[in-house]
Amino acid sequence: MLKTNFQVSEEYLRRALSSLEALEGRNGKGNEFLGWLDLPEATPSFLIDECEQVASLWREMGVQVVVVIGIGGSYLGAKASIEALRHAFEEDVNPGKMRVVFAGHNLSEEYHAELLDFIEDKNVACVVISKSGTTTEPAVAFRLVKEHIEKKYPAQEACRRIVAVTDAASGALKSLSTQKGYKTFVIPGDVGGRFSVLTPVGLLPIILAGYDIREMMKGACDMARRCREKNYDNPAVRYAAARNELYASGKKIEILVNFNPKLQYVGEWWKQLYGESEGKDGKGIFPAAVNFTTDLHSMGQYIQGGERILFETVVSVKHPKRELVIGHDAQNLDELNFLAGKHLDECNKMAELGTRLAHIDGGVPNLQVEMDTIDEYNLGELFFFFEKACGISGYMLDVNPFDQPDVETYKKNMFALLDKPKYEEASKAIRLRLKD
Amino acid sequence: MLKTNFQVSEEYLRRALSSLEALEGRNGKGNEFLGWLDLPEATPSFLIDECEQVASLWREMGVQVVVVIGIGGSYLGAKASIEALRHAFEEDVNPGKMRVVFAGHNLSEEYHAELLDFIEDKNVACVVISKSGTTTEPAVAFRLVKEHIEKKYPAQEACRRIVAVTDAASGALKSLSTQKGYKTFVIPGDVGGRFSVLTPVGLLPIILAGYDIREMMKGACDMARRCREKNYDNPAVRYAAARNELYASGKKIEILVNFNPKLQYVGEWWKQLYGESEGKDGKGIFPAAVNFTTDLHSMGQYIQGGERILFETVVSVKHPKRELVIGHDAQNLDELNFLAGKHLDECNKMAELGTRLAHIDGGVPNLQVEMDTIDEYNLGELFFFFEKACGISGYMLDVNPFDQPDVETYKKNMFALLDKPKYEEASKAIRLRLKD
Repeated sequence: MLKTNFQVSEEYLRRALSSLEALEGRNGKGNEFLGWLDLPEATPSFLIDECEQVASLWREMGVQVVVVIGIGGSYLGAKASIEALRHAFEEDVNPGKMRVVFAGHNLSEEYHAELLDFIEDKNVACVVISKSGTTTEPAVAFRLVKEHIEKKYPAQEACRRIVAVTDAASGALKSLSTQKGYKTFVIPGDVGGRFSVLTPVGLLPIILAGYDIREMMKGACDMARRCREKNYDNPAVRYAAARNELYASGKKIEILVNFNPKLQYVGEWWKQLYGESEGKDGKGIFPAAVNFTTDLHSMGQYIQGGERILFETVVSVKHPKRELVIGHDAQNLDELNFLAGKHLDECNKMAELGTRLAHIDGGVPNLQVEMDTIDEYNLGELFFFFEKACGISGYMLDVNPFDQPDVETYKKNMFALLDKPKYEEASKAIRLRLKD
Repeated sequence: MLKTNFQVSEEYLRRALSSLEALEGRNGKGNEFLGWLDLPEATPSFLIDECEQVASLWREMGVQVVVVIGIGGSYLGAKASIEALRHAFEEDVNPGKMRVVFAGHNLSEEYHAELLDFIEDKNVACVVISKSGTTTEPAVAFRLVKEHIEKKYPAQEACRRIVAVTDAASGALKSLSTQKGYKTFVIPGDVGGRFSVLTPVGLLPIILAGYDIREMMKGACDMARRCREKNYDNPAVRYAAARNELYASGKKIEILVNFNPKLQYVGEWWKQLYGESEGKDGKGIFPAAVNFTTDLHSMGQYIQGGERILFETVVSVKHPKRELVIGHDAQNLDELNFLAGKHLDECNKMAELGTRLAHIDGGVPNLQVEMDTIDEYNLGELFFFFEKACGISGYMLDVNPFDQPDVETYKKNMFALLDKPKYEEASKAIRLRLKD
């Protein structure tokens, strides 16, 4: 699973192993949020059945578009999975397929106006994902989409077109769901947003988009087993050790690299996982992501020749799921006949290997995470691997990898500026500040 | 145009001004690649006419999909513009519109197989953009798409469905075009890829996607005038001065921020512009990009609380082009009634202001680039502003901002691994290395 171009030191491996033990022993920082450790094995089959029943019901009702409302961890796991699994031109090649689109992941007036254009004449359903129901972005989007659905369909039918993924017992969305009779799924209280892809937060949208969540769970299960081993072959231990050793040596930026555009949003998901878990107390590796070979023609120059404060982790896919061979051309003006008869992926692999060697020569240490192919099983493995390694890595850095204390700072300012009730003092203070 | 939350020092402003003079005097490093300075004013109207004629012809021929083949600077300017200008659900709300899709910007076997699925039963044309015609990614994609078009249409018609944007006189693509009689447009020899959005490299795809390039040129013209002024109010001078001063003070990472998902690929374009221009000789600011408020829920924690090696440049859009007001809800379970009657954009703006204040308080210096709205004129302004400031900034850093010497390193390895003719010695050497 994990390869490095350098020897990870015994000291860092030992530290990683003791962090693993703290994680497994559930006696480290933030141990009230370790529910994700059990998800692969403890998720009951009936929960997946229930998600599948929603998909069946909505297909029977002729639903064309499901608007999935969520932000952060309530968006990125599903987005990453669906982008990885879908055909690049899905809507064109499978025009009849129920389509998942996202909302409430920004506050753009244009985006949401355009979303309403789009669903105007569509058969629509909605999944709203929010623990509290009061997070601004999803709450605003849900007001809009709920209003649209309630105008379009009779009251009872409207309720059948809305499913909430929320807290088990409390919060605005839970109350509304009880009152309206929405079908609900539970976000476990001991799983933080960025670790929630294997809860209904991820499961339901991925199933609605038509993918096999049982396979994803199986992959996560197998990886959970491997990542529990208390030895230096545990890939999560190795990854956590390597990146902390690199960070201590002055490598401040980690670039997650893929060579397949399907993995673009896995990069975004990974950035939240590591950035939010480790970026606190004035420390943490800055997470960046690139899509190669695309970005070799944009960020490649910097990586090869800029400040030497980087290392790379390449998510390497062994086998593509499609076949395409480069043809022969009698004229060969483009000088490509040396590639004739080769699969595109062979060129891609040699670009990958060639880049790895070039960057190593340029002083950019290289880690490699291998996956067999891009499917549900391998994504399940990949997600759990990165989650487990993140918990270990955060403990090595001596932070609480399961909180996000600084995320509230901008929100307080925003609420003060928007005159939210109970923010009256803050409103006065911020207006005074702006006058200066 | 440009605001900062801090005072830029006289010293850096003076240095920026003398770099501007070197740029305008065309006596600095890489001065053989300064053709982009003249594009806004010197681009003849007939060149735009010619692009428009291609669009008209293809529309008359019923073309549904134009495959635009290019990578790096031959991809990002057009991609950034089209993503900024299009409706978020363009294909659904304007199903009859001629559609631009991209290829040759990666080596993914899956992507290109899926592209061929997609165009299988479509009326197809192709723009291939490459100075040499031998860059691997676009050359491979062009072999595939050319073969598809030649199989589908009679020989003469096939040639009318292919347009090449390439060197004026030499190279494989120029030779092929002459032989086949493809319509061609010229990539000026004195304009590098990342500065080429206002040449036919960007103009033609943007026009084919249905946007008004004359307005974009007008915006660029107006900005070119402002960015020529030899004083400290010149926004390009100020931006270059500010970022170099921040870099010298230890801020190693610049994050380009937007609050509108339409600008996502402007961030990617900007990363190439600055990363490739400045990331050399072991120096340069590392360029990153985020889309807020989306990424406040992923990268927000790091930016607020992680390593203090960051500063932000926010591309701020004054006016959205659509209107959407948040409704009132009698129950107010989501506690959002304090927003009822407000435009979404007002919340977005307060999120922007609140975030700026929070990040400044957290030790993240803040620059702000303002644009009026997201349209062709304002994009033209923005592109030229960033280009001009990049030239100045690179000179301040004492690098040649117009070369990219390290981009070739991985290509040499790749060609050696793929046994390209004339790489025989390198092939042997790299195989020996891999055996070790």
